[in-house]
Amino acid sequence: MAAGKPILAISASNIAALIGAELVGDDCPLSRVATLAGADSESLSFMAARQYTPMLRTTAAGAVIVASKDLADAPCTALVTENPYLGFARAAVLLHPRQAPAAGVDASAVVAADADIDPSASIGALCIVESGVVIGPGVELGPGCIVRAGSEIGAGSRLVARVTVCERCSIGERVLLHPGAVIGRDGFGFAKDGEQWVRIPQLGSVRLGNDVEIGANTTIDRGALDDTVIADGVKIDNLIQIAHNVSIGRNTAMAACSGIAGSTRIGQNCTIAGAVGIAGHLEIGDDVHFTGMAMVTRSFPDAGSYSSGIPVMPSTEWRRNVARFRHLDELAKRVKRLEDKLEQEPAPSGAPKD
Amino acid sequence: MAAGKPILAISASNIAALIGAELVGDDCPLSRVATLAGADSESLSFMAARQYTPMLRTTAAGAVIVASKDLADAPCTALVTENPYLGFARAAVLLHPRQAPAAGVDASAVVAADADIDPSASIGALCIVESGVVIGPGVELGPGCIVRAGSEIGAGSRLVARVTVCERCSIGERVLLHPGAVIGRDGFGFAKDGEQWVRIPQLGSVRLGNDVEIGANTTIDRGALDDTVIADGVKIDNLIQIAHNVSIGRNTAMAACSGIAGSTRIGQNCTIAGAVGIAGHLEIGDDVHFTGMAMVTRSFPDAGSYSSGIPVMPSTEWRRNVARFRHLDELAKRVKRLEDKLEQEPAPSGAPKD
Amino acid sequence: MAAGKPILAISASNIAALIGAELVGDDCPLSRVATLAGADSESLSFMAARQYTPMLRTTAAGAVIVASKDLADAPCTALVTENPYLGFARAAVLLHPRQAPAAGVDASAVVAADADIDPSASIGALCIVESGVVIGPGVELGPGCIVRAGSEIGAGSRLVARVTVCERCSIGERVLLHPGAVIGRDGFGFAKDGEQWVRIPQLGSVRLGNDVEIGANTTIDRGALDDTVIADGVKIDNLIQIAHNVSIGRNTAMAACSGIAGSTRIGQNCTIAGAVGIAGHLEIGDDVHFTGMAMVTRSFPDAGSYSSGIPVMPSTEWRRNVARFRHLDELAKRVKRLEDKLEQEPAPSGAPKD
Repeated sequence: MAAGKPILAISASNIAALIGAELVGDDCPLSRVATLAGADSESLSFMAARQYTPMLRTTAAGAVIVASKDLADAPCTALVTENPYLGFARAAVLLHPRQAPAAGVDASAVVAADADIDPSASIGALCIVESGVVIGPGVELGPGCIVRAGSEIGAGSRLVARVTVCERCSIGERVLLHPGAVIGRDGFGFAKDGEQWVRIPQLGSVRLGNDVEIGANTTIDRGALDDTVIADGVKIDNLIQIAHNVSIGRNTAMAACSGIAGSTRIGQNCTIAGAVGIAGHLEIGDDVHFTGMAMVTRSFPDAGSYSSGIPVMPSTEWRRNVARFRHLDELAKRVKRLEDKLEQEPAPSGAPKD
Repeated sequence: MAAGKPILAISASNIAALIGAELVGDDCPLSRVATLAGADSESLSFMAARQYTPMLRTTAAGAVIVASKDLADAPCTALVTENPYLGFARAAVLLHPRQAPAAGVDASAVVAADADIDPSASIGALCIVESGVVIGPGVELGPGCIVRAGSEIGAGSRLVARVTVCERCSIGERVLLHPGAVIGRDGFGFAKDGEQWVRIPQLGSVRLGNDVEIGANTTIDRGALDDTVIADGVKIDNLIQIAHNVSIGRNTAMAACSGIAGSTRIGQNCTIAGAVGIAGHLEIGDDVHFTGMAMVTRSFPDAGSYSSGIPVMPSTEWRRNVARFRHLDELAKRVKRLEDKLEQEPAPSGAPKD
Repeated sequence: MAAGKPILAISASNIAALIGAELVGDDCPLSRVATLAGADSESLSFMAARQYTPMLRTTAAGAVIVASKDLADAPCTALVTENPYLGFARAAVLLHPRQAPAAGVDASAVVAADADIDPSASIGALCIVESGVVIGPGVELGPGCIVRAGSEIGAGSRLVARVTVCERCSIGERVLLHPGAVIGRDGFGFAKDGEQWVRIPQLGSVRLGNDVEIGANTTIDRGALDDTVIADGVKIDNLIQIAHNVSIGRNTAMAACSGIAGSTRIGQNCTIAGAVGIAGHLEIGDDVHFTGMAMVTRSFPDAGSYSSGIPVMPSTEWRRNVARFRHLDELAKRVKRLEDKLEQEPAPSGAPKD
């Protein structure tokens, strides 16, 4: 258990008021958040799923955030709200506030004379800010970030550390970019000249909306002529590839190790689980959900949950089944021939017809 | 639309001459490239696929690059060539030339006294160039690149930003390395000593040929004894893993999120789509094409297109089909038993035999 | 062939003694390791698999490491040991020792006044070491590494180059972190507030045990409340995602491009091949082996080898088989109907029953 060092205690009643929950039970001082199992009398914990009821009943927490249906199982002060997980997210920020670095430019940073950096922004050690860059109010560039010529970073955004923003990209407000992310690499586009590949200049850019989050070592390529566009509220995890001219709609979330090929458009409020591959030039509608390792090769305009892949099984069974898969088309034809054969005989009474 | 700022206008006739196209219609000044939809009277656009004919007919472009078969649909000056996409690639470079940085070593770079840097090379801010490195004419190291001891970078190559080239690697001429790429990490090789893993020293290197491109956050490991070798003209996208002792033949291209395990040899002129996994110690011939998410577990010496994977379907259907896949071997045996059973009865006239 | 430059010659008898092998044949000086094919009279080579017998018989090596069963095929001095690959790993280190950098802090590094750096540690060019960091004896930070506030790096660990260790992480002894690795990014956890995602503060940390290795551009996220824990001896390759609150048991090894989703627990001595995806909240036991591209969606408490996926086949065959897979459930029902139909007829003598 390594919850961050608290900087203060807050009363349960204050927290309840700040997160919009109802206090049931005695008020008490709280100084940290913790799991039900790891909590002590100064801890605030929460219950997000029914399976944790036994742990709720025995928690040593000073207070817990619960839904009203679980209130009876709380052995301590309760903060009652219909979305305990959301309440917890808000309470955790109150009890464990991030300490923002001081405003100003670190002496070791390399900043172009014509970069426009708001005085309230913080530019960390060994950052590079090139010509014509605009850095908005309250922006934090952690150590080792590079913002290349002509890019803009909106108010309140945070580049955690070692983020690379290439030329002429536009980053919205309150955006969070994690270490190793590369925003605005030239897209992977080539024309063939005989056997050789000739690079297509990538003249578009990347535009990230407000409240976007981009994970560690994720890459988002710039567009060829038009831009690659990530709408407000999109959350993208680690090691994800977003190719040139992709667009992703508001509040869509993508888990790690996924990739989207060029020019595909993803709608709003989609969820894309881990290691999903989405081919290029597709249209994915709003409220589409792809499960893990899904292989998306055509457009899905309609909302719904879509899946693919073969879950693991013992290797010996898998080998036998895969061998059969190689002849599945033939197997289906054999079944058809059997059906045809039996069709020509008198059907036994009661047998279903296909 | 964010096509880069033009630095000059060029006449359509000059562009036609420079890209080897035939001018049909009036000459006109052109200052940028654009999509058919986004073009204005100073824009040069192009038509690469028949489906865009309606947009070609209504484009406001000053000129378009088209194949002769589409000339009749062009409402403006036409640059006629049989490969419009290639023509466009070349014209875009003419209208939007990259501005190379000034030669010389940035004051913030850390350069070993015995590094051999050509005077025409440019070493960007906070680069690190270690002992014995050789940097050729016209090389650009963008901000934050690291070139470790004993490596060589050939003439005209460009390390865009924050590239890591480990010790003793050899980078050819006109190579393009994107941010976050790691060239020459020690390969992942271990011997077992009881339950513990003992690292095998990786004494080989990485050699990249001429005109190679390596994407953002891609990793290419050094060989154990021999080298990992990437031949001339190979293009490798983002987030790709190339393990130790792999070799890749000329002009092969790989899309993002793919991986090649150790000691596999890939031929020339192959295309490897996104998220493909290729096992180790395989031999893949020339002109082999793997489609997206292909799972390559054996050698393919012969040219051809190979595929695998199950494309997505509605999750409810998928669950039912996957449950059946787990028993596919059994299903095939059941079909065989049915066939045997019917075989022993008189076959109806005309029914095909398996 | 680019085996590293040897710095000395060692006699075959000395090497045999140091790696615990028996010398058979004349003693001789050895100055490098090499493949059987690439060896010369000062080279030490080895034979790890029977298929190389023809190369063993014709090698020009001065000496070879072999198992006793292959001794008869060695044309030169032999170092006999039952695990030649392990012997080779140890001999290679003797003949090609890494030259450690000098102790001390490079003048270009940015080090917080209150960082506690052992005098025997080496801090490379343009490193950043933040407040409260503890760097143990013999630690090497290669060029461009970032160690953020409150983290600890154990004795003898090596951060090769451009590694990012986020706040309050704990790195064990003799750990090896490769370029681009990101340790301790805030985990990807959100609560929903209507259509918007609200970030869950990630208050846990990452703890890496002793002798852990983490590959290039791999990402290991910090836990939400508890820590993400990687046990002693775990080896993790490139471009791998380890999500928050994952734990991995001793000596487990993972190949490149794999990912493990949040809160999954992996046992000891497992091997996870390349591009494997493991869903969240699962329990994987000890000695479990997943083959390449396996899709793991449920817990596997028992030791064994598990597989999934469809290996590639010619694209035309694949298309036909995939089309049938979409109707596999229906096909199975059709087979059942055929069985029912035949069941009601008199079974031919000798036909097997299902």
